[in-house]
Amino acid sequence: MVISEQLELSTKGDADIHDITGEVGRLVQGSGVRDGVVTIFTPSATSALTTIEYERGALADLRRLFNEIVDPAREYQHNLRWHDGNGHSHVRAALLGPSLSVPFVGGQLTLGTWQQIVFVDFDNRPRQRRLVVQIVGE
Amino acid sequence: MVISEQLELSTKGDADIHDITGEVGRLVQGSGVRDGVVTIFTPSATSALTTIEYERGALADLRRLFNEIVDPAREYQHNLRWHDGNGHSHVRAALLGPSLSVPFVGGQLTLGTWQQIVFVDFDNRPRQRRLVVQIVGE
Amino acid sequence: MVISEQLELSTKGDADIHDITGEVGRLVQGSGVRDGVVTIFTPSATSALTTIEYERGALADLRRLFNEIVDPAREYQHNLRWHDGNGHSHVRAALLGPSLSVPFVGGQLTLGTWQQIVFVDFDNRPRQRRLVVQIVGE
Repeated sequence: MVISEQLELSTKGDADIHDITGEVGRLVQGSGVRDGVVTIFTPSATSALTTIEYERGALADLRRLFNEIVDPAREYQHNLRWHDGNGHSHVRAALLGPSLSVPFVGGQLTLGTWQQIVFVDFDNRPRQRRLVVQIVGE
Repeated sequence: MVISEQLELSTKGDADIHDITGEVGRLVQGSGVRDGVVTIFTPSATSALTTIEYERGALADLRRLFNEIVDPAREYQHNLRWHDGNGHSHVRAALLGPSLSVPFVGGQLTLGTWQQIVFVDFDNRPRQRRLVVQIVGE
Repeated sequence: MVISEQLELSTKGDADIHDITGEVGRLVQGSGVRDGVVTIFTPSATSALTTIEYERGALADLRRLFNEIVDPAREYQHNLRWHDGNGHSHVRAALLGPSLSVPFVGGQLTLGTWQQIVFVDFDNRPRQRRLVVQIVGE
């Protein structure tokens, strides 16, 4: 059984991190699928998905890592060619990855107590995003 | 067909890396599902999954990377707020990711000869962990 | 419904990045499965999968990141033990990850316009690679 859903959100860009756990959980529960895996996918080359404890300390620490290893103030070949200034966004998104797979059992996501599903928009400007939420199970 | 299994392990923390290939393979074989994908998921914000050649040289090299780009000796906003000293663990886990999907064919994982499934516990203390092993296929 | 396919490619190694979007899309369309998730998996400990805008600027920027945080010119414990010179390849592959899950709807991958599926061969020599393409859906 496969249920295809979508999730829309407005982001501010610049490593804007959104907690989408509630929305994903509601889509799984509403699907009527009891057991399976939900794949959350961003159809974009400048944003990514992962899990983290959604508290502002950990979020700031994650942003610092990306600022250090993929510094937006440096020169990027992407920017030299396309002049859109988001070369660092592409590198960060490729590193973190566009896809997250979360098992669910009895209609409940199997997340830890302090673990949230987050969408990270690395682009350098506000965006309207539409994520794919694919529910596969029985 | 969906089979939900679990896998328990005791870890020492501090980037303790466990080879769980054998256990995952046995769960897949025991499930009776012939072809599909197994999703291994850690319900935790301070641990992660990937694959690596499980030999102590490569493991030491991976630990060095994390020590360099997410140095535990630095200050973390998470620690300033919560005083649990594992701010670096949260950042590392978010970067590496909580989920791994491995196809299997004829009941066998499609891993390479020198490739093992590993669970990495980034927390700063020993933990008792319970991983979700979700088998989807036919 | 599960369809197991393979995809072969010759790589030059040294962070050689291949766009495999077309091949994956054709395998999904040819499978007859309408809706589901395709898992692309590399059975190797020195290569990885992600998505990126496949233009040479962004590819160069991604390679620079890996050259900086996992510098091939340094000493690696893996190399001291095995003398094959690809210690950095192992660390990079473990960080980026061997697996990518992409939802498809109506036989079409749900990728963004500027987003391609890429296989990255981090090994230090040319390789003949065979990827697993596992299609699960209905």
